[in-house]
Amino acid sequence: MLRISSANRVAFERINAGEPVLRRVRYRHEILPELDRTVLLHAGPPLIWNEMCGPLRGAVLGAIRFEGLAETDAQAEALISKGDISFIPNHAMGAVGPMTGIISYSMPLLEVENAAFGNKAYCTINEGLGKVMRFGANDEEVLARLRWIRDELAPALDTVLGRTNGIRLKVLIARALAMGDEFHQRNIAASSLFCRDVFPLLSRELDDRMVLQRVSTFISENEQWFLNLAMAAGKATMDPVRNIHGSTVVTAMARNGTNFGIQVSSLGDRWFEAPVLEPRGLYFPGYSKEDANPDIGDSTIIETFGLGGMVMGAAPAVTRFVGADSVEAAYSYTRDMGEITLGPSPHYLLPNMDFIGAPTGIDIVKVVETGLLPVINTGIAHRNPGVGQVGAGIVSPPMKCFEDALRAFAIHHGIES
Amino acid sequence: MLRISSANRVAFERINAGEPVLRRVRYRHEILPELDRTVLLHAGPPLIWNEMCGPLRGAVLGAIRFEGLAETDAQAEALISKGDISFIPNHAMGAVGPMTGIISYSMPLLEVENAAFGNKAYCTINEGLGKVMRFGANDEEVLARLRWIRDELAPALDTVLGRTNGIRLKVLIARALAMGDEFHQRNIAASSLFCRDVFPLLSRELDDRMVLQRVSTFISENEQWFLNLAMAAGKATMDPVRNIHGSTVVTAMARNGTNFGIQVSSLGDRWFEAPVLEPRGLYFPGYSKEDANPDIGDSTIIETFGLGGMVMGAAPAVTRFVGADSVEAAYSYTRDMGEITLGPSPHYLLPNMDFIGAPTGIDIVKVVETGLLPVINTGIAHRNPGVGQVGAGIVSPPMKCFEDALRAFAIHHGIES
Repeated sequence: MLRISSANRVAFERINAGEPVLRRVRYRHEILPELDRTVLLHAGPPLIWNEMCGPLRGAVLGAIRFEGLAETDAQAEALISKGDISFIPNHAMGAVGPMTGIISYSMPLLEVENAAFGNKAYCTINEGLGKVMRFGANDEEVLARLRWIRDELAPALDTVLGRTNGIRLKVLIARALAMGDEFHQRNIAASSLFCRDVFPLLSRELDDRMVLQRVSTFISENEQWFLNLAMAAGKATMDPVRNIHGSTVVTAMARNGTNFGIQVSSLGDRWFEAPVLEPRGLYFPGYSKEDANPDIGDSTIIETFGLGGMVMGAAPAVTRFVGADSVEAAYSYTRDMGEITLGPSPHYLLPNMDFIGAPTGIDIVKVVETGLLPVINTGIAHRNPGVGQVGAGIVSPPMKCFEDALRAFAIHHGIES
Repeated sequence: MLRISSANRVAFERINAGEPVLRRVRYRHEILPELDRTVLLHAGPPLIWNEMCGPLRGAVLGAIRFEGLAETDAQAEALISKGDISFIPNHAMGAVGPMTGIISYSMPLLEVENAAFGNKAYCTINEGLGKVMRFGANDEEVLARLRWIRDELAPALDTVLGRTNGIRLKVLIARALAMGDEFHQRNIAASSLFCRDVFPLLSRELDDRMVLQRVSTFISENEQWFLNLAMAAGKATMDPVRNIHGSTVVTAMARNGTNFGIQVSSLGDRWFEAPVLEPRGLYFPGYSKEDANPDIGDSTIIETFGLGGMVMGAAPAVTRFVGADSVEAAYSYTRDMGEITLGPSPHYLLPNMDFIGAPTGIDIVKVVETGLLPVINTGIAHRNPGVGQVGAGIVSPPMKCFEDALRAFAIHHGIES
């Protein structure tokens, strides 16, 4: 007999037991030597070139040039047309990336180990705001920054991390949650706590004073620095929840700019997809809904492990930024998310909601039953590559993903014929 | 005709116009060359040696040794007995200090300029937690740390500040308020933001690598680092509010461990005093009410300019630490404080209370009329010198201070004979 509730209890316990620790910075080719330069990893469920939105195409072309396979976008497109470039979702390779989420051969990745289970997860290093590859920009300025990240920042960070026992992200996340971060659109507290912890180590371990200055300045100037760490922490936390027989818990939510996909514990790595929805949100001056790219990125791993829009109530300062109506609306979102999750986190607490735990473990059964969809706080990219972020808002996965997953679950477990 | 309301409007506008900027680190003897080594500044209203509580005596004896006037506590006491040491309140000299608040001749001070009015205010550099002079400790470890602060940290910080336009504390405070700091018992957000802003500057400006390491580590390890900056910001903000004819606004609240004193705008530098009350709070393991020193310190300048206990609702994470019953209680405190203040700050906003402004400008008339006293979040020192902090809690000024001040106000303005 299938015991969904006990399977989900196991899932819930595994999420809560997760102990994500930032261990190192490593290059993709070290972690995945079987993939050569012609293979690009990307955000969301699988898709082909012809299905890709503008920013994703921009990032792909930029990454091909970054890897030295082409000099121009036209040459890069020719390679794609010939079928010389292949595309694999990040999630299939233990990784995640925000927005376009491109991970190419020589890119450095944050390595986060889930110390409770021994699995490792990877995420790119945040490039900062503005014109960056994750928003589809790919000019020389963007590639030069990526080279600097690869050649100077990554080895520097890895050197420092190598002389520590790692940085316990769970502690940082719990503290920053009490400081108004929700880790998707607001990471200022966690980023600042990271600076506070790591800068003395940098000053101890980095011999080259100019490197120290550039590295500390780069990290310091990016309020979203911690986003990619939170994403790797989420991926590391959720991977051990995969493949629990009978569990209806969502293990990944991700968008490729065309489709939104979810994965469900007992259904392994199968994606349940539907066309992405448009975020409702606020636009930076000069931009509007017409400029918005469809929803994109692996950053929804943040909501998957109980943060982001799920804990909007912890981050009242973000509500106006994402266009929520009021603080009470923020609290309501979080209370609603309690209806579709397995339970409150015992570790990620919201002081300003009387220390309730973050709503943890999205259950596809509860989503379909209640009709309540996970709330996602998302950045909005311009639909043309290279422009960058034009706003932020709230979006949901399409209900179809959950309905299809529930149907597949029933079939898989012989509940329905 | 006396127009209290228009006088208080001027006061309110001056508070809001305040623009505290950290400019430099300077030694007391540079700022106050007229005071020699035999003069000690202390927290709270004036008092004499015989009236001093244990921790204040401990700090006084330590400071006399720190200045090289005596080798032992006994020798230091002998100097005091002979009348060779004199005591002046910090507030009388444009300065503030937490807890015992001792400022001696060679100590370095944070210089905060109120850029809107040009006045400057000073506060000691925070020594960290545990066995420190502000809690009355005075052994060699304490004095060695103070020497390091004086000889290495202070010049290093001053060098760095000298190459900036100063650090705008109002911006930092506003940001950290949205991150759950109330700046009296909780300064983790502001301290981290400070690290994030300043460490890249340190790494650029400090040539000696060992100095850089020690300085960045010391600042990084102290979650209350920002307390003293907030205090200097408060003093710099409130000093231009002094001497407004007809204003009933409190310009200072301070305790010397024996008496609580307040000052009121239109009554100049006159103190209205009454014996301090005992904080109600939580004690660290192994300590109880019996160990508590009476309420002490200039840190109530934090509440005077609208933060600390006044914005308890902004800092739900602090409520349990200071022994408040619930988050709702924290919100209630802040709402109550609206009843005794001139109005909400237009700059210091509380996102989790729907962006209301911090209750600003304590009005002695409203305090006496409503019977509501300002709420103060305070640290609790052990009554014996040298033990350090044993808890934290909530305390109020004695009502008598406000009643006496109101009576004096009436007499001063010829309202009562």
